[in-house]
Formats: sequence, C-alpha cells, structure tokens
Amino acid sequence: MSRQPRSAQTRRALIRSAAQTFDEHGYPRAKLTAISAGAGVSTGALHFHFDTKAAVAAAVEDEAARTLHDSARTVRHLTPDPLQALVDTTHVLARQLATDVVARAGYRLNCQSAYRSGPDLRTRWHVCVRELLDRAGEQELLVPGLAAEESATALVGATTGFEVLAREDANWLTPSAVTGLWRSFLPMLAGPGAPQTPEPSGTRTTPRVRRRTAAAQRTASELVR
Amino acid sequence: MSRQPRSAQTRRALIRSAAQTFDEHGYPRAKLTAISAGAGVSTGALHFHFDTKAAVAAAVEDEAARTLHDSARTVRHLTPDPLQALVDTTHVLARQLATDVVARAGYRLNCQSAYRSGPDLRTRWHVCVRELLDRAGEQELLVPGLAAEESATALVGATTGFEVLAREDANWLTPSAVTGLWRSFLPMLAGPGAPQTPEPSGTRTTPRVRRRTAAAQRTASELVR
Repeated sequence: MSRQPRSAQTRRALIRSAAQTFDEHGYPRAKLTAISAGAGVSTGALHFHFDTKAAVAAAVEDEAARTLHDSARTVRHLTPDPLQALVDTTHVLARQLATDVVARAGYRLNCQSAYRSGPDLRTRWHVCVRELLDRAGEQELLVPGLAAEESATALVGATTGFEVLAREDANWLTPSAVTGLWRSFLPMLAGPGAPQTPEPSGTRTTPRVRRRTAAAQRTASELVR
Repeated sequence: MSRQPRSAQTRRALIRSAAQTFDEHGYPRAKLTAISAGAGVSTGALHFHFDTKAAVAAAVEDEAARTLHDSARTVRHLTPDPLQALVDTTHVLARQLATDVVARAGYRLNCQSAYRSGPDLRTRWHVCVRELLDRAGEQELLVPGLAAEESATALVGATTGFEVLAREDANWLTPSAVTGLWRSFLPMLAGPGAPQTPEPSGTRTTPRVRRRTAAAQRTASELVR
C-alpha cells in the first residue's frame, strides 16, 4: 500500500473524528488529543495534517460545504420540476444534517460567524431557494402574483429554524417533519398551472442523490492528499 | 430616598449591563468586572445581588421570560381574532427581541440548554401558537381541513429561523420582514369563513401592548428587591 492512500485515509479519519468531537462537545471545548485519539492516530500524525484546531475545523466545514452543495446540485439535475426539486433538496439536506456527522458539524461551524472559514452556507441556501422559485415562476408553476422573495424568505426561515430546533430534538429533521413542512408550504406556492402537484414527501430521486453523492465523495476523497 | 428603591435600581442596572455584556461578547466570555462597571457599581455591589455569573444570567433570563410572556398575554387580551392575535404577537415579540437588550440576551441564554435556567421559551412559544390556531379552528376561521399541528410547526420553525438569522443580520426581525412572513403564511391559514382577513402588518393594538407592558414592568421592578 503506497503512502498516498494511507495519508488520505488518516486525513479522512481525522476530519470525521473532529466532526464527532465538535458535534458532541462544541468547538471551544474540543481537544486535539480527543480528535487524534478518535481517529486512532498520534497527535504527531494530526499535526502532520493540520497545524491548529482552526485548520481541522476549516477542513470539516469545507467537507460539509462540498457534500451539501453536491447534493443540492445533483437533485437539481435529476428533478426537472423546480418546485419538486426544492422539496427534494430540503429532504436530502435534512437527512444529511441528521445522519452525516461531518455535514452536521461543518454546517454548524459555518453558522457561527466566529468559526466560519468559507462562504456562508445559509446565504447560499437562500440563493438556491430563490433560484428554484424563480425557475418555477418562469414556468408558470406558482400561484399567480406570488412574491418570490417573500416566499423564499419564509422558507429559508422555516428550514433554518428546523435545523436549529433539531439541535435539541432530532425529530425536527425527520422525513415526516420535512414532509409536514411542505404540506404547509406547497399550497401557498404551487399554482393551478402546474402539470402535477409536487409530492411533499419527496420523490424517488432522493435516494439516488444520496448514492451518487456518496460515490462522488469517495472519488473526491481519493484525490485529496 | 430609602435603601429599598436604590437597591432595586442597582439590581435593574446590573441586569441590564449583564444583558448588554452577554449580547456583545457571549456568556462564556462575559466578565463580572465588565458587568459591574457597565452598571456603574463596584464588584462588591454586584456580589451583594448575585453570587455568580450564572445567577446574573438567570436573572436576565427570568426578566426576558416575564417581558415576552406578558406581551404575548396582553396581545391575546386586546385582540379578539385569534389569527390576528397570532400575527400581532409575532410583531410585538420580534420588536422586543430587536430593541430590548434584556429580552434579547435572556431569550438567547434560554435557547442554549447549557445556560438555560427557566422553562424552555421556544416550547412555550410553540404552545402559544398551537393554542391560537386551535382557537381559530374552533371559530371556523381556518382553511377547511388544515392540519393545525403542521401549521404550528411550520410557523414555529419560521419564527425561530428569523430570530436566529437576525443574530447576523438585524433585517430579519424588522416589521417589514415579519409582515412579509405573514403575507406568505396567512393565505395558507385564513379560511373563507373569516369575517375579515387578518392584517399581516399587525393592528394598532401592538403599540398599546408595548406601552402596557412597559408600565407593568416599571411597576413590577419597583417590587423587586
């Protein structure tokens, strides 16, 4: 086994262990010794990859941003109906935040301006929601006269709130909670011009997105040192 | 001037200074010396009122809970239409969080389970929203067949998200942002049976609530040691 894949494996294990440590104890209380121990390596090995705790955090955040961004992009490619794509994207992102500790910890680091190292993911999400609503508007799928920015703002508020509330009660990010959110929101968005009413529980593209994204991540992570 | 009012004044000044310090630096970095200096008193005077930083935080949280609770209750008394009461309550609470540093800092301490000392205010808000929706349902003011709990959950998610997003961008809690939220939400809640459509920007009861609550607080604070 050559040195390159081993090194990449260690880096991946450190990012995952750091995410678990941040997720459990919060960034300020996370200790580098706990992160290296969780990855099954020495602190020397950790320092070979990351100079500081902030550098490990930046790597967790970067990995989370890539995962969430890739998922959102894949849903858009797989789902031609922009409203259904919006529904499916929230389901896929909610599941990633609920089940993937790197996505969750990285996203939460990004939410705190003091620890953020990359682009603001909440703002990116707002742009994504707005773009899909605009596309739905161009295709005359929305309720006539709907104010797209107000709807985008309400949706970004609600999804942000669900993620924050899930920090204390995981039920806020379950598929049934997200479906309930869409059962509330879709009637105020989907106009009579839509060929079919979007499905609030998401479509079968969502499991395909997860498989595709996982495969893409495996490929990407092999390329990282 | 007797000792009692002076002592109550000092306590009030300490609570306000503590709220400003928590609001600016966060609870973990807040220093007792900064809190006493902000109130214009010695650290000895601070310790006469509060044993620890946690005790000052609990007093800030307690004061915030009382303010927010009193406002919500007053709106309900002043506004007979339960949907309009729900709209007005969000406007009043958003304004308090935006402009009253004690309400804001106390609410935010309460949002973090590690620092919370009283009842969970987000859960109380969920109960309040659900009760008003149920009352609207009993009066046949809602869209027929509406699932009250799903609507309550969407609303609690959205309002929670707005408060969280306002921590980085105060525009999320302005009257126009809250009005926009209600312009999105009201069409999915208000049924054709309503005698009049609720006003998304709130009614003129909202300034009266602020005056009444302020007066009640002044009276209450005179009674505190």
